[in-house]
Amino acid sequence: MQQISLITLGVADAARSRRFYAEGFGWTPVFEMEDIAFYQMNGLVFGTWLKKNLEDDMRRPNPAPYGAYALAHNVRTKAEVDPLIARLVKAGGQLLRPADEPPHGGYRGYVADPDGHAWEIAWNTAWTISPEGHVTFKL
Amino acid sequence: MQQISLITLGVADAARSRRFYAEGFGWTPVFEMEDIAFYQMNGLVFGTWLKKNLEDDMRRPNPAPYGAYALAHNVRTKAEVDPLIARLVKAGGQLLRPADEPPHGGYRGYVADPDGHAWEIAWNTAWTISPEGHVTFKL
Repeated sequence: MQQISLITLGVADAARSRRFYAEGFGWTPVFEMEDIAFYQMNGLVFGTWLKKNLEDDMRRPNPAPYGAYALAHNVRTKAEVDPLIARLVKAGGQLLRPADEPPHGGYRGYVADPDGHAWEIAWNTAWTISPEGHVTFKL
Repeated sequence: MQQISLITLGVADAARSRRFYAEGFGWTPVFEMEDIAFYQMNGLVFGTWLKKNLEDDMRRPNPAPYGAYALAHNVRTKAEVDPLIARLVKAGGQLLRPADEPPHGGYRGYVADPDGHAWEIAWNTAWTISPEGHVTFKL
């Protein structure tokens, strides 16, 4: 089955990360402890976990704080992209790329979370978003 | 909306990565070009993109190949965990942690893909998986 259940990001400071996702994206954890927060997403779970604990669980000591990958959050209208990027930066994010129009159309920019994990904020004219937030690939 | 549309991993060698996801997980791309592959997942899209192109798009030069984060693929029975980990390693993955039982129950191990991106392969007794593969957080 083509299925992803969980995305877990390692974070250095749980409160700083919590603030970014709460005040930037406006998300509320479904479960929270001192070192970990889980958010119920569209058919999968998103988590933030103290980097050291994630490293121990993966049996992988000292990976880089972030790497060559990006998560994307799509919005339903072009007008939502810039204000969301501004809110994310205000909540402790780092602007990587101000929004502009990619060659294939739409509108997108990139922000890194306080630990450097990259988020693309995109309005994609081709990919439909269901009322539940499920996204279907289309050209 | 608590929503993730897309996860994109930067890869050094598209064919090597394609083999890992095709032969290891058994996944088929919904779209493929020389530098990029997209897989339709459970309400979101998973992509692999040549690292250099992803870096250019993010405006972030030379991030580490991988970092402190993990994706998880949950299976429906405990008996599926070990054979899937074995297939992933055979398809070019690196075993990080052989499967064992975490303190909260269930059964899980970790494998890195050929670029180092970590995958947890888990049987989780608490989180339900719908027929469409959607996962709901539960304690």
